[in-house]
Amino acid sequence: ELAELAAEQFQHGALAGKRVCITAGPTREPLDPVRYISNHSSGKMGYALAEAAADAGASVRLISGPVNLPAPARVEVTSVETAEEMLAASLDGIDQCDLFIAAAAVADYRPVSVAEHKIKKGSEEIMELRLVKNPDIVATVAGLQEHRPYTVGFAAETRDVVGYARSKLARKQLDLIVANDVSNPEIGFNSDDNAVTLVSADDEISLPQTSKRQLARQLIEQIAQQYHQSTQ
Amino acid sequence: ELAELAAEQFQHGALAGKRVCITAGPTREPLDPVRYISNHSSGKMGYALAEAAADAGASVRLISGPVNLPAPARVEVTSVETAEEMLAASLDGIDQCDLFIAAAAVADYRPVSVAEHKIKKGSEEIMELRLVKNPDIVATVAGLQEHRPYTVGFAAETRDVVGYARSKLARKQLDLIVANDVSNPEIGFNSDDNAVTLVSADDEISLPQTSKRQLARQLIEQIAQQYHQSTQ
Repeated sequence: ELAELAAEQFQHGALAGKRVCITAGPTREPLDPVRYISNHSSGKMGYALAEAAADAGASVRLISGPVNLPAPARVEVTSVETAEEMLAASLDGIDQCDLFIAAAAVADYRPVSVAEHKIKKGSEEIMELRLVKNPDIVATVAGLQEHRPYTVGFAAETRDVVGYARSKLARKQLDLIVANDVSNPEIGFNSDDNAVTLVSADDEISLPQTSKRQLARQLIEQIAQQYHQSTQ
Repeated sequence: ELAELAAEQFQHGALAGKRVCITAGPTREPLDPVRYISNHSSGKMGYALAEAAADAGASVRLISGPVNLPAPARVEVTSVETAEEMLAASLDGIDQCDLFIAAAAVADYRPVSVAEHKIKKGSEEIMELRLVKNPDIVATVAGLQEHRPYTVGFAAETRDVVGYARSKLARKQLDLIVANDVSNPEIGFNSDDNAVTLVSADDEISLPQTSKRQLARQLIEQIAQQYHQSTQ
């Protein structure tokens, strides 16, 4: 009931009438029917952002890799496995999206070929695995010539966090980047807490360590503000 | 209370006074602080076996890769990530184990080197990943010259299931193999159900599709029988 009350309060909220598309979780890139390459993303940050955006009055679509999280209330969830599936799902209906928030930890590379049957362990001590670069989902969306949504990326780094984030912002033509330091075990991928720096072309705002849920509310507030400034 | 009653009934159960060591779940082989290679094992089969063995009166140690399952009651759980950690944990105290059941889906290969910092995506379209073979945990245990426990392996296959299982049994000098067909989506890795064939040097017993919990009880009963025959 409290949640519904909060939701009602946000009918005139910061993102009322806006459509927000959010990617979350890891992707899994299969080597064969049983093995895959993935990463430690839990999806908690993306799911919390989806909930916060819905509470801020937005119509929310969540495009999610494999995670162990319940679907947030009032959010439309599309489940995907691989980066290619996530890209296709992201572009499907992108012309309806006002904001695109890429919180997923997309695998940079996938195996060149996927074996139809389980690869038998051979006698070789060393095996070479050929990987090919995955499509860059957030850069593809940010580079759209028509119907380009306001585009927010994430940067999970282990060093020089703001430096890497700002170069990523420019290179991928993003509007904003949410940067965090995953080398700190108290925050980040599998933790319930996070601390981030919101980086734009000419500004940076630090949001100190708090729960991902609380941080998501602060982030949605900041993102909405910057979005509205950009459309004025 | 029912569980406790059942447990008491099994004080004189098929494995009373025996020590059973069980591996379960996948292993994760890191590429860098955020990425890893893994597989679709949920750990459900190994956890169900641990529970069934405890119910059959055994003292149970469960050596578990990363899973989303609660620790079974009356079972000592050791958590590990990589195959090398799982091997070390398995050999630690192996002289106390009467039976060793290798239900884990151990990664066959791991990256040759683990990057200390997150690998930055380069401009290369293709990346070669060098992998080195992991230690074979169940074969190492089965090959022990002293204090060798009765050793049961698993074979997850997508074709010619019994054929591959029997050649694995001989090659790794196992006492028994539990073989299952992971190409059937109704059973296997992420499913709650399973169906297996128990393969020994001169016999095979098919256990038809049922819940992993029910199947685990049948398996522990069969394994205990064969174990007692082998020690007569």
